[in-house]
Amino acid sequence: MMIKLWPMPKDVKFNSTSTTTLLVASHFHLITQYKDSSSILKDAFHNLINLINLPSSSLSTLNSQYYLLHGLNVVLSSTHDNLQYGVDESYNLSIPHPHSTSISNKPLYAYLKTFSQLCRFNYITKTVEVNRVPWTIIDEPRFSYRGLLIDTSRHYLPLPVIKSVIDSMAYAKLNVLHWHIVDTQSFPLEIPSYPKLWNGAYSNAERYSIADATQIVSYAQRQGIHVMAEIDVPGHAKSWGNGYPSLWPSKDCQEPLDVSNDFTFKLIDGILSDFKKVFKFKFVHLGGDEVNTSCWTTTPHIRKWLRRHGMNGYGAYQYFVLRAQSIALSHGYEIVNWEETFNNFGKKLSPKTVVHNWLGGGVAEKAVAAGLRCIVSNQDKWYLDHLDALWQDFYSNEPLANIRDPNQQKLVMGGEVCMWGEHIDASDIQQTIWPRAAAAAERLWTPYDKLAKDPREVTGRLAHFRCLLNERGIAAAPLAGPGRVAPEEPGSCYHQ
Amino acid sequence: MMIKLWPMPKDVKFNSTSTTTLLVASHFHLITQYKDSSSILKDAFHNLINLINLPSSSLSTLNSQYYLLHGLNVVLSSTHDNLQYGVDESYNLSIPHPHSTSISNKPLYAYLKTFSQLCRFNYITKTVEVNRVPWTIIDEPRFSYRGLLIDTSRHYLPLPVIKSVIDSMAYAKLNVLHWHIVDTQSFPLEIPSYPKLWNGAYSNAERYSIADATQIVSYAQRQGIHVMAEIDVPGHAKSWGNGYPSLWPSKDCQEPLDVSNDFTFKLIDGILSDFKKVFKFKFVHLGGDEVNTSCWTTTPHIRKWLRRHGMNGYGAYQYFVLRAQSIALSHGYEIVNWEETFNNFGKKLSPKTVVHNWLGGGVAEKAVAAGLRCIVSNQDKWYLDHLDALWQDFYSNEPLANIRDPNQQKLVMGGEVCMWGEHIDASDIQQTIWPRAAAAAERLWTPYDKLAKDPREVTGRLAHFRCLLNERGIAAAPLAGPGRVAPEEPGSCYHQ
Repeated sequence: MMIKLWPMPKDVKFNSTSTTTLLVASHFHLITQYKDSSSILKDAFHNLINLINLPSSSLSTLNSQYYLLHGLNVVLSSTHDNLQYGVDESYNLSIPHPHSTSISNKPLYAYLKTFSQLCRFNYITKTVEVNRVPWTIIDEPRFSYRGLLIDTSRHYLPLPVIKSVIDSMAYAKLNVLHWHIVDTQSFPLEIPSYPKLWNGAYSNAERYSIADATQIVSYAQRQGIHVMAEIDVPGHAKSWGNGYPSLWPSKDCQEPLDVSNDFTFKLIDGILSDFKKVFKFKFVHLGGDEVNTSCWTTTPHIRKWLRRHGMNGYGAYQYFVLRAQSIALSHGYEIVNWEETFNNFGKKLSPKTVVHNWLGGGVAEKAVAAGLRCIVSNQDKWYLDHLDALWQDFYSNEPLANIRDPNQQKLVMGGEVCMWGEHIDASDIQQTIWPRAAAAAERLWTPYDKLAKDPREVTGRLAHFRCLLNERGIAAAPLAGPGRVAPEEPGSCYHQ
Repeated sequence: MMIKLWPMPKDVKFNSTSTTTLLVASHFHLITQYKDSSSILKDAFHNLINLINLPSSSLSTLNSQYYLLHGLNVVLSSTHDNLQYGVDESYNLSIPHPHSTSISNKPLYAYLKTFSQLCRFNYITKTVEVNRVPWTIIDEPRFSYRGLLIDTSRHYLPLPVIKSVIDSMAYAKLNVLHWHIVDTQSFPLEIPSYPKLWNGAYSNAERYSIADATQIVSYAQRQGIHVMAEIDVPGHAKSWGNGYPSLWPSKDCQEPLDVSNDFTFKLIDGILSDFKKVFKFKFVHLGGDEVNTSCWTTTPHIRKWLRRHGMNGYGAYQYFVLRAQSIALSHGYEIVNWEETFNNFGKKLSPKTVVHNWLGGGVAEKAVAAGLRCIVSNQDKWYLDHLDALWQDFYSNEPLANIRDPNQQKLVMGGEVCMWGEHIDASDIQQTIWPRAAAAAERLWTPYDKLAKDPREVTGRLAHFRCLLNERGIAAAPLAGPGRVAPEEPGSCYHQ
């Protein structure tokens, strides 16, 4: 029998010959000693009830051959309400015969998501069942950083779309939403300290107020997901100048941000000061990729400034990145930077830097050898906008490739799949993300030894997860073929 | 100034030079004399509040230059709780200066949807505004039947997906969900009278219980949408035989349903008897298209039966359709049949038949000339699965083409866009439907004289509606290009 769990837990014991089925009782409830003052557990449990589509009708008339599952008895070994990065995400889930379940864990999110996948609606008896009990699952993630990037600069993503992405991430046990908020094309976010910045929004409507951003962070937190905000400086920031044109080197040469202007850094300081009130995640992403310094070296006042400081374009790029880093550090953030910063001046970076790989393979091993932490997103395998990257490619991409020293392995925080927005908007984001992101999610969650060496072995189980996403209203695409492919012919979801 | 309403109401008066803006008050509420015992109005108003994203914070600190809109004062001229086909959908919406609005209408759905489109969130003041008051809108639909077909046989559509389609229909003022439930490929619906029928479902999970169907009907009704169920007999029904193989002419020749077997009609009677408890719409759709009778004329026992009754294949097709019609009539349904029934034996059809055009143009004029009612869905213009049909084609398709006699015009109930499911599932249905279905929705709602002769004139307004759909979490695709196209390049939603 196929275990229909995705991602596969660390250790699963069940009785494949068992014919014992538990029916989830209509009075199914959560039992915990924990004083749930911020109702985090209550909300999480309420989400579970919705997910498993528990019918409200009574089960009292059922045949006595069934046993009822009355509730989940949760013993919490830690009771922090605030979601912290690196928190112990492990849990033990035990569904013994006849009718109770008890566990021990810290954040409840992963546990409840696993439990929801054990539940099936039986259309004959009209009940929610857990089959083949007893189950004992011992689980914890392999990597603490399991990310997905969304890009709201190339196309604006409305709030309900972002919330739906967050829901879907939680189903796959991804835990970091990397919000690439602004870029060259648009600046949709309100920055109270510099209220003209979102003049760079595409329109009056394509914006996020601070209240919206706060809502996103809090919605994500209630699903066990961190939000990491990014400003990509100095290269991907042309839209900043719509509100503050002095950030541009000149009217005709508008990128990167003017390195010679103190206002540039004052403004970054203001942004991060505002960020700190909303984005409580340990890290802020400062970008730093694809910096072409020719506007600096050709614009007279900047050329003069460079000469005065004895810098060439390359040196000014380093100067900019390091100065932005120190601003972020002064606000209590640790930093993520795209890999070009490491490739160009890795030794100068703050030791609190996380190197975000994207250009290709082989970077993580260099970053961790240099003692820096790393997030893996090599574009050939983990860029979702590359429609020709198949789910099998996503599944097989190993973050620890060629890293054998256990201390260096620990520096790989995890990985992230990137949904860049050039050709993505509200109309096609979900089916471009899923099911391929799920393949990466298992790579990031499941112990290495339990991962399939040949992705074909997990096709059926991933198809099952894709159908589960569909059942939950997430527009995950068929597995067959490249990203975002339409079903080829009529047939069951499970065979597409 | 562009009026940003879709579909365009019958008559809109506003003051284009007005600078008066009303702010929707945080205590915004519905005033009505009507005793809302089934809380239909309360639900509808609650939906409105969600749609316009009314912030909960107080507006008391605002500058006195603004006026507050305290509520909607609704005078109902009819108070039927049950949604009936053909009900007067007209409304008058008046938003006078300074701060109240009063209307008169019957079902509130269209009125509230129009009002929601007058509201805009102002990101600077953080309030919901109605600009350029006063507004006076007098509105009613041109056609009473404004349909969308979904097909849950070729691919199963999970409940949240269907609900989301219903939501989106309401935004465009479409009012009939034509549910093509079963077909050759699968039979997902529970039929209590014949409980083996859904053995023809693709899998144990890809099913709708009677409770699910009831939920869909009631969810739709709360949005002002009727659900018309279809069984497509005798041609598109192979999946029925999975549970009851005697419905097949033979094991090797499984379609159409065995015309010689009384059980076939007994079963149709059972289905319609069960339907009647769930699908309260005036019409049931009995299909009748694409019937190839060669299984009948080649299978010995049916050949014998045909000979005994002096029928050829053609005659048996007519016999089947008419017998199915009389069963439906006996259950109190009026009937919709695909156009082949009319094309082949139109004079024999019950006068309670509605001819559902699909093969091409020119059919409606023949059907109404014969005194029958008609629904227009010519596939070259209104089949959403034809990805090469552009929104401009959908917009320009005129149901009354070549029908000049007012009495014949009245027989055209309206039209329907069809989202056939061969290459459509939960992953791509919304962006294949929208925005093209919206173009048809305006054709079906707006008075002929107010429709654009050249669709290009409405591009900006339709783009605006598409972005509104996105804001509401509906994955409507860009306008540029054929169906379900991805955005070509970064940019504002309003220019894609």
